[in-house]
Amino acid sequence: MDIFDSVKTMQAKAASLRNQGKTVAFVPTMGYFHEGHLNLMREGRKRADYLVVSIYVNPTQFSPTEDLDQYPRDFTRDCSLAEQVGVDAVFFPDNAAMYPQGYQTYIDVENVTRNLCGASRPGHFRGVATICAKLFHIVQPHVTIFGKKDFQQLAVIKTMLRDLNMDIELIGLATTREDDGLAMSSRNAYLSAEERKSALALSRSLALAKHLFESGETDGDTIVRQVTQYIESHPLTNIDYVQISNADTIEETKNVDRNTFIALAVKVGATRLIDNYVFGDALDVPRPE
Amino acid sequence: MDIFDSVKTMQAKAASLRNQGKTVAFVPTMGYFHEGHLNLMREGRKRADYLVVSIYVNPTQFSPTEDLDQYPRDFTRDCSLAEQVGVDAVFFPDNAAMYPQGYQTYIDVENVTRNLCGASRPGHFRGVATICAKLFHIVQPHVTIFGKKDFQQLAVIKTMLRDLNMDIELIGLATTREDDGLAMSSRNAYLSAEERKSALALSRSLALAKHLFESGETDGDTIVRQVTQYIESHPLTNIDYVQISNADTIEETKNVDRNTFIALAVKVGATRLIDNYVFGDALDVPRPE
Repeated sequence: MDIFDSVKTMQAKAASLRNQGKTVAFVPTMGYFHEGHLNLMREGRKRADYLVVSIYVNPTQFSPTEDLDQYPRDFTRDCSLAEQVGVDAVFFPDNAAMYPQGYQTYIDVENVTRNLCGASRPGHFRGVATICAKLFHIVQPHVTIFGKKDFQQLAVIKTMLRDLNMDIELIGLATTREDDGLAMSSRNAYLSAEERKSALALSRSLALAKHLFESGETDGDTIVRQVTQYIESHPLTNIDYVQISNADTIEETKNVDRNTFIALAVKVGATRLIDNYVFGDALDVPRPE
Repeated sequence: MDIFDSVKTMQAKAASLRNQGKTVAFVPTMGYFHEGHLNLMREGRKRADYLVVSIYVNPTQFSPTEDLDQYPRDFTRDCSLAEQVGVDAVFFPDNAAMYPQGYQTYIDVENVTRNLCGASRPGHFRGVATICAKLFHIVQPHVTIFGKKDFQQLAVIKTMLRDLNMDIELIGLATTREDDGLAMSSRNAYLSAEERKSALALSRSLALAKHLFESGETDGDTIVRQVTQYIESHPLTNIDYVQISNADTIEETKNVDRNTFIALAVKVGATRLIDNYVFGDALDVPRPE
């Protein structure tokens, strides 16, 4: 497995692969791999000749009050896991390589970033769009794979690729979950045992929303109210948002149908977790009693 | 010569050229060609196997009060001139192709756009950076050629390419001038005979600045004052800015050296013209008496 820390070397490798008519798949990550990341890589492995994974905790998508410094990192373990699933190259740049002195260019995707995490985390998606565009220009992939856990992020990338005419296929992969339903996240490492129990409120509340929808409920306010009440019945939880939105525009809607999704952001103790459910999709989570 | 009006077809052609190991040169334009445009194309012709010119009057770089609707156009003549200088393909998209329903992604290059035309024309360089990134993703060039008449625009593109890690070589070509020194511009077509005479104040004032510098003057205020007085002595002129700036950062400076330039924006009648001179460079313009 190749490990590149230089932009120039990674870019030269990508250009040389393209010259040889090889296809490139790309999974951008912030590292500290769990099964969710590995599933993205397994999908990428199937879809191209050469599979690149980037590991970079991007400072421009964190606000000054967020967890940039404490974000978990384990490069050695990550490389070992990447190699086991057949990754060809890990791109592992440092901040000086990505944001050199005088850096000043940013990408705004406007409408799909107004709600949900875009509202709660000002500047977050500007950082995400910018770093992804940079990584796309460096890795030059034919196909890129993102998880649906960050559903709004997926919409941001889809919109940016379309608007800026980037010739890259985007695959969104279903959220990988722990056996009890908790969405996998590097931030789960922050949870105490008690918080870990309360964190189940997120996925369970989505199973409740699914059940209500399948029972014929199409009123968004009703579903949001029941989901909210269910989450609030768990200790240590503090809701940032519970919202139903159109899956393409990410605009809030009151009418639930199969082109809408319910998104949650909940602080459990000091840890902010997100999860979501697209109405009509499968969801392998037991419904609360 | 190929003429493409579809993004998909142009992009597929570019990808196919890259697959064959061919190089692509690209000159983005708003059409209504003069010798300045043709010189950019001649340079592109020398630098790659396949030369693409785009003709697109980009609405997002015009403010509502500017001359978008009256901007001169002559597609048939442009194609004939392009073919004569050996262009392989003209890319000629319409607004629906470039900014489809739901378009919402923009690129900001921050520091180098704060002064000069960035200050006078809010949003202008956001539009320029965005359309150029889109065109670069569609045409996928190895090399792109811009004129130095729009010196700040060149700095914006250089900064964006560097910051977003776009793997494209940028060539800046010296301004092409009429015999009497006037910088060529599609907007010169707006000038009446009397305005055309006064428009010479721009290039002549740059020759004055060059003379002062070569005589040992390094105080920016002195040069700006004399240039301003010279322009103001011409009827029908109305100065937007006369400023000396660092050639890399486009920040105003009072100390003139070979890494600085003097930039002018002057309304002559209703027509806004720009010109500039990088201190120490050649300038084929007669000095005023």
